[in-house]
Amino acid sequence: MVVELICVGTELLLGNIVNTNAAYLAEKCAGLGLSCYYQSVVGDNADRLRQMLCTALERADILILSGGLGPTTDDLTKETAANVMGMPLVMDAHSLERIEGFFQIRGLEMTENNKKQALVPRGAIVLDNDNGTAPGLILEKDGKRMILLPGPPNELCPMFEKCVRPYLEGLQPGIIYSRTVKICGIGESKAASMIQDLIDGQTNPTVAPYAKTGEVHLRVTARAQDEKEAKQLVKPMVKELKNRFGMDIYTTEENVTLEKAVVDLLLANGLTVSTIESCTGGMLAARLINIPGVSEVFKSGYITYSNKAKRKVVGVKKSSLHKYGAVSEQVAYEMANGSAMVTKADVTVSVTGIAGPDGGTAEKPVGLVFIGCCVRGRTVVKEYHFMGNRAKIREATVSAALTLMRHCILEYYSEVTFRR
Amino acid sequence: MVVELICVGTELLLGNIVNTNAAYLAEKCAGLGLSCYYQSVVGDNADRLRQMLCTALERADILILSGGLGPTTDDLTKETAANVMGMPLVMDAHSLERIEGFFQIRGLEMTENNKKQALVPRGAIVLDNDNGTAPGLILEKDGKRMILLPGPPNELCPMFEKCVRPYLEGLQPGIIYSRTVKICGIGESKAASMIQDLIDGQTNPTVAPYAKTGEVHLRVTARAQDEKEAKQLVKPMVKELKNRFGMDIYTTEENVTLEKAVVDLLLANGLTVSTIESCTGGMLAARLINIPGVSEVFKSGYITYSNKAKRKVVGVKKSSLHKYGAVSEQVAYEMANGSAMVTKADVTVSVTGIAGPDGGTAEKPVGLVFIGCCVRGRTVVKEYHFMGNRAKIREATVSAALTLMRHCILEYYSEVTFRR
Repeated sequence: MVVELICVGTELLLGNIVNTNAAYLAEKCAGLGLSCYYQSVVGDNADRLRQMLCTALERADILILSGGLGPTTDDLTKETAANVMGMPLVMDAHSLERIEGFFQIRGLEMTENNKKQALVPRGAIVLDNDNGTAPGLILEKDGKRMILLPGPPNELCPMFEKCVRPYLEGLQPGIIYSRTVKICGIGESKAASMIQDLIDGQTNPTVAPYAKTGEVHLRVTARAQDEKEAKQLVKPMVKELKNRFGMDIYTTEENVTLEKAVVDLLLANGLTVSTIESCTGGMLAARLINIPGVSEVFKSGYITYSNKAKRKVVGVKKSSLHKYGAVSEQVAYEMANGSAMVTKADVTVSVTGIAGPDGGTAEKPVGLVFIGCCVRGRTVVKEYHFMGNRAKIREATVSAALTLMRHCILEYYSEVTFRR
Repeated sequence: MVVELICVGTELLLGNIVNTNAAYLAEKCAGLGLSCYYQSVVGDNADRLRQMLCTALERADILILSGGLGPTTDDLTKETAANVMGMPLVMDAHSLERIEGFFQIRGLEMTENNKKQALVPRGAIVLDNDNGTAPGLILEKDGKRMILLPGPPNELCPMFEKCVRPYLEGLQPGIIYSRTVKICGIGESKAASMIQDLIDGQTNPTVAPYAKTGEVHLRVTARAQDEKEAKQLVKPMVKELKNRFGMDIYTTEENVTLEKAVVDLLLANGLTVSTIESCTGGMLAARLINIPGVSEVFKSGYITYSNKAKRKVVGVKKSSLHKYGAVSEQVAYEMANGSAMVTKADVTVSVTGIAGPDGGTAEKPVGLVFIGCCVRGRTVVKEYHFMGNRAKIREATVSAALTLMRHCILEYYSEVTFRR
């Protein structure tokens, strides 16, 4: 089946936001074995959207739209799609109740224009929005389908997983099964070159690399009549990838993120953790605290952005700051060790770096970062050089810190085991 | 003039990468006063690309294409565009020399397929690529234009700035000018209903609301012959919005974020700040540290996720934790005040809440958050109820904390001024 993605929003046309919905939906559709030949963006304009929908209906079986379902008069997606499909809008009591509840729970006043969000095309499948007010909709007519999703990613993604994925799976015979092998600490080019022969020779299953910040995900996908057959097709390929990437694979589970892998490692070994951050300013702690249940291992986090805080909070030596500078191997070392002394955590991680745009020199350019990790008294400091703007450098630093934590903990236990 | 963006690449259709080129080009084109009604993505497929180009030529004056200029057989953009414009490909001696030089400087061997990149449509304007091998191209015919740019952002962006921007500026007189009025602490629906009459009556300038987490941005856009005229059109509308939203407007500057507005307020009043976070786990500090220059005001940040850390780091009373629970007005109050004692910062902000998915009760449901803000000894604690998943609740909490900081600082100074 052929799917086409249409993202609606003047803010996309004006470049106010990056179209992450298109990438998300494209990846999910590819994973479901749907072919996609076109993605489009159109503004909040009924005539142009109508024309786009008519064109897309000629070349695809399923249109997935995102955006333009909000309460304002700007938002025209539902009205236009209903019109093209010839389905009049009717008030949906269930949706109205949910929207009223949404406002009631928050103690907010519901304005009249919010009621508009409870209007649905007659006969449409209504998808409850657990994270906002606009419900999603599936419109079916004459073998063609339109799936309307809200624009905010935190509403769209859960709705896709909960409602749209099972719907799309039900449309096709046979199944698509995929496993993702997640790798940290190896660049995309290197990872791709390590599996070029597998990509060149692929038929069923296929292997596709996806680059993430500090990570590469290799998706292995098979088509088959049933799950058992698909799993049998996927299994040897996953095994081969495990042979090639070894310990750099942090998980093969879909819902395990790098921070979850690290927290699981801490929990499994009964290790507590503290963070001490400079340029990342809390982002590393925030990623660990993404994981529900981290409270069992997370002792405390410090953000020591200034030299004074580095000295006062974790006892970095004044002389070290003076001699080596705040962004140095020595200071990262003292931050990690000082944090271990102060918090008594089993694992401490320190970050100090130059995220820019200012503060770089010829000797210490923007992007220079030192990350220290102390596991029960054994401290490792690594030097990194990241590219990009402030945000990119900080994100890359957090991924590198998680990767270093994982390596240091694994190494600690492999050597401890070895010594016995 | 009407421009249309077409990004070419199967990796975009598969969702392997996010289409940042489209956002970049869209923003640049909007800034140049070009109207853009459609963006498209098409794979490395000559037939579909040709069809797309023909459709786009009917509705736009200028097509900007990115991607598909590389040396491999996959790369078909130049060949297809030249064919549609009826311009045969010829070898360009200048480009060939540059490509040879590119390989020579890097000590790399130039393969035969790289020569293909020096073929250009006869009569095309060649744009030198300072960061790669594929030159950019401008094809002109019968009042229509196609601008072909390489896909990698580090090649595309400098080429746009150096060659394409001046070219586009030379094509047209009038301009588009826009201002964004940014509001915090008011929901999208309420904000939209407060300006419904302005939206209904709009012609030039137009007003459009954009919802962000905890914020609403109102974009006022005017078209005019020159900047002066455009500014005069925009000015009364911005003034009217200021009348209606008053102090809830935190900026009307394009590049000022909520965290920047808060940091600017701290800098302007010579106030230092410390954060003390539980459920947000460093996200609030990380947002403040988004701002280069925050080092002048940011004293330190603490992440006290556990009860023990709350007691040890900022002296929350054991009895308060026992009597009221960690997520309570009293604990938020003690965290903010304790942090002020420990760090001596002028402004301290505390966050304690239940981000879920676990930990909620009937009395204290998931989404319940207390935020405290102490400005020079005056402490305010507010209670919030946020919806959504863990990530959404934490993001909303950070925005609410920034909004509360801003309000408390403004209030402090308005009363201090009043008392004099």
